[in-house]
Amino acid sequence: MKALVYSDEKGLKLVEDYKKPIPKDNEVLIKTSIVGICNTDYEITKGYMDYNGVLGHEFIGTVVEVGNNVSKELIGKRVTGEINLACNNCSYCARGLQRHCPNRSTLGIFKKDGCFSEYFTLPKENILEIPDNVSDETAVFVEPLAAAAEILEQVKIEPNQKVALVGDGKLGLCISLILNAYNVDLVHIGKHSQKLEISKGFGSKTMLLDELREKDTMSFDIVIEATGSLGGFETSLSLVKPRGVLVLKSTIAAKEGLNLAGVVINEITIIGSRCGQFKPILRLFEKNKINPKPLISKVFNSEDFIEAFEENKKKDSLKILVKF
Amino acid sequence: MKALVYSDEKGLKLVEDYKKPIPKDNEVLIKTSIVGICNTDYEITKGYMDYNGVLGHEFIGTVVEVGNNVSKELIGKRVTGEINLACNNCSYCARGLQRHCPNRSTLGIFKKDGCFSEYFTLPKENILEIPDNVSDETAVFVEPLAAAAEILEQVKIEPNQKVALVGDGKLGLCISLILNAYNVDLVHIGKHSQKLEISKGFGSKTMLLDELREKDTMSFDIVIEATGSLGGFETSLSLVKPRGVLVLKSTIAAKEGLNLAGVVINEITIIGSRCGQFKPILRLFEKNKINPKPLISKVFNSEDFIEAFEENKKKDSLKILVKF
Repeated sequence: MKALVYSDEKGLKLVEDYKKPIPKDNEVLIKTSIVGICNTDYEITKGYMDYNGVLGHEFIGTVVEVGNNVSKELIGKRVTGEINLACNNCSYCARGLQRHCPNRSTLGIFKKDGCFSEYFTLPKENILEIPDNVSDETAVFVEPLAAAAEILEQVKIEPNQKVALVGDGKLGLCISLILNAYNVDLVHIGKHSQKLEISKGFGSKTMLLDELREKDTMSFDIVIEATGSLGGFETSLSLVKPRGVLVLKSTIAAKEGLNLAGVVINEITIIGSRCGQFKPILRLFEKNKINPKPLISKVFNSEDFIEAFEENKKKDSLKILVKF
Repeated sequence: MKALVYSDEKGLKLVEDYKKPIPKDNEVLIKTSIVGICNTDYEITKGYMDYNGVLGHEFIGTVVEVGNNVSKELIGKRVTGEINLACNNCSYCARGLQRHCPNRSTLGIFKKDGCFSEYFTLPKENILEIPDNVSDETAVFVEPLAAAAEILEQVKIEPNQKVALVGDGKLGLCISLILNAYNVDLVHIGKHSQKLEISKGFGSKTMLLDELREKDTMSFDIVIEATGSLGGFETSLSLVKPRGVLVLKSTIAAKEGLNLAGVVINEITIIGSRCGQFKPILRLFEKNKINPKPLISKVFNSEDFIEAFEENKKKDSLKILVKF
């Protein structure tokens, strides 16, 4: 079968004869319909997570086969799935935190072939059905939007708190869409007026980075960092009020210096935030409360996957989707 | 009067003819009895806070004069005082967070001459009386111990949570003393067996840094960083469980690289923590629940202040006190 595979040796290749997997006990086999490219996929091709295998973790597909201990009624269902494969037997799993299970593998990221292929498997407990009134092209946003909604699981945002979001890439725009769905009073700060226009459409107030003034320093109760850059982290930190909260959504690595003295002096709380839960996002889709389609830059066919992957690297690109 | 003064121009000098201050409206004049040297004092002589003036913010003294609007009954009282001089007119002050008042000055640190002098002034609202049964040499620890207790104001520690404290300098030992006073199950990790012995005396379990094993990685619910070094920060971060808390007590500045990816992947919360409230510490002293005296390295007389300051810089030194 066709699969987009990364290996340290051969780099990124669209392979035509990758071995089609067979569902094990408690697993389902999914025939892929549509997938989304995430920057994490690109990071993996630069060495992130030391991962070799089929890439991809954002998908919609149809169950076509089931292993032992799985109801045959699942066959034919249109589904998505949580990407962390957990042990369901540890203290994290017991608390519903499968995404922090120390024994987990992660679809297309860690020890588990991903969804950028014609077929792939997942445990039945990871599978979620897509409501009939939600299109594939909307539903495929469930994973990045769940990651955005994770913020709301970790931080209680009070009705009158001032919230800033820094960074207007895919991640920032997903966060804007979700926080507006939950009626947060949000100022979205970025470098690209065209991307900020989309955020405005979601309901955010917007501001170009250049428009920041001294009075904005230490003026926000909660700041969300979604730039992926050290400069963005430092800007975000400077905007937080004393005793305020900085939510860190992108994995920052400072190659040069980084001064955390301000975190101590102003007693800032920094909260790292990663994956979230899919069900609330499917509810928002089903009730037609959010529309992620303005985030789609381009839809490719799977034979052009390498081209799609290149397109995703472009600064202007938002979400690149690929149909199988 | 005698005063220990730092200026960019002349460096650190013990001056004999510094001008004795006069208490303004709402202020008291304090005759200094004993002071403690803090590493912040030393940092200031390396440029921290761009401060020039009399150093010092840990003290016990006696009120000898009062300005207008201050009751004469304060004269003769043995006192200490909160070190942040706040406006008492802003949203932070309204919430009891005078130590975050944006209009504040800080004794011996920012825009206000400190206590390393024979006399100095403070607003009456900063003043706290020392209970009769508490000695000067105990009471002078109120400020660093209040900073240690700030952790308990910011983080709710559950009875069965595993807590690690990294760093066995003055700051770490103050934190050990306080957390044991509040019955926290604490593992104190450091490099100096002699200092860890003191911590053991306070009630902590102790462990040398070399004794850390792989199983300790990501095994603590709460980790408190009190090393002041980038390496210590990285060690502390590695010990925190997914979704756990890292309390940052020392002002870290990474000159080289610093990777915060783990904070996002494991959804760690980092909480900066600085000054705390004095009253609960005075209660602990009054009820004889804590004894900070094992933290005293040496007591100098004020004519030897420069020598005392040098002694504080030594790696082995704990608290250096100076009598006036």
